[in-house]
Amino acid sequence: MEETDNMKLYSYFRSSASYRVRIALNVKNLPYDYVPVHLVRDGGEQLKPAYRKVNVDGLVPTLVDGNETVPQSLAIIEYLEETHPEPPLLPKAPADRAYVRSLALQVACEIHPLNNLRVLKYLKHTLCVDDDAKDAWYRHWVEAGFATLEAHLAGDARTGKLCFGDTPTLADTCLIPQVFNAQRFKVDTAKFPTIQRIYDHAMQIDAFARAAPGVQPDTE
Amino acid sequence: MEETDNMKLYSYFRSSASYRVRIALNVKNLPYDYVPVHLVRDGGEQLKPAYRKVNVDGLVPTLVDGNETVPQSLAIIEYLEETHPEPPLLPKAPADRAYVRSLALQVACEIHPLNNLRVLKYLKHTLCVDDDAKDAWYRHWVEAGFATLEAHLAGDARTGKLCFGDTPTLADTCLIPQVFNAQRFKVDTAKFPTIQRIYDHAMQIDAFARAAPGVQPDTE
Repeated sequence: MEETDNMKLYSYFRSSASYRVRIALNVKNLPYDYVPVHLVRDGGEQLKPAYRKVNVDGLVPTLVDGNETVPQSLAIIEYLEETHPEPPLLPKAPADRAYVRSLALQVACEIHPLNNLRVLKYLKHTLCVDDDAKDAWYRHWVEAGFATLEAHLAGDARTGKLCFGDTPTLADTCLIPQVFNAQRFKVDTAKFPTIQRIYDHAMQIDAFARAAPGVQPDTE
Repeated sequence: MEETDNMKLYSYFRSSASYRVRIALNVKNLPYDYVPVHLVRDGGEQLKPAYRKVNVDGLVPTLVDGNETVPQSLAIIEYLEETHPEPPLLPKAPADRAYVRSLALQVACEIHPLNNLRVLKYLKHTLCVDDDAKDAWYRHWVEAGFATLEAHLAGDARTGKLCFGDTPTLADTCLIPQVFNAQRFKVDTAKFPTIQRIYDHAMQIDAFARAAPGVQPDTE
């Protein structure tokens, strides 16, 4: 890859957490160099020494900005918000910021950690759970999480075309990849009409479309 | 309970996420009214209509500050940081803030979601996993998470008596409850010497001691 002054994003096309950061970078119009880390091939490149030198956690994404290395998608997005405030991904008022963060965390702490690749692998290979039970586990946590998110979004006057008004926020950067992921696992997201409506709208926004798993440099 | 102008914290003594917020409130010297929500009794008070009216998610903690209701522990702590900046729980420089947030998120996204009560119940009752396998699951995710946290903390010059220097940050509000929880589940935390050292130091600080599960109004 040619060396540039751009930030570098270590990413996997299908990783929801990477997808969140790709959306944030696009919303903020920040060019970046995409460094693919294949989570499946050869036992997972994220666990190899070469990547552990970048990020000891062995997880994607990692953002490298000059001398700074930032792991964890939400820490990366808050970092981008602080270093490149415009256009903002958080509203101004503390209570509104808390609301947007709480929506994002409902995805990032209550749904996604239970359904990521390493957990599904543990269920299958260590607990010897069959595919039906594994799929039921996946659906259970997504549907429980989406039910409460739907209750928030359907009941809150701040909901617009997106999670908070009509412009993208941290909440959308987390929700949209989770909906994509749920559909991949055959969850009927139409049961959550506000979430579905927000997803359909986001898919028409360039910053989201360009971040989608189907159009990354490492898309298979 | 007597009505006051204090913030209200809906909490369960043994909830790690509630414990995080109790530490943050104490560090910031903010008085608050403790409203107990019993997560076990009678199928869980957090799932009953009375509590769902406060927080539709059916999770603790929830902070109520005047007219504002904030769910999700990390959103609450960021809210407290913005509304009551002193003493701070985040450093000043964006890269340092990102580092502290990433440590907090490693607990909040990679360890705790896999080991909370509802997940352990699903393993036991729906997947019919026996107690040994359930305990192995618990230890697996704590030990994997602590190993990477230990690598960060042992290798970073910013580590002091606590996760970032010598004064409490968001990272400590997450790490300390996770260590407490791990010890309750018989994980040998001494295998992670930097984490153990930070925990031992924190236990001597009043703001942490007063937040501990053993001394709450609803402690059993």
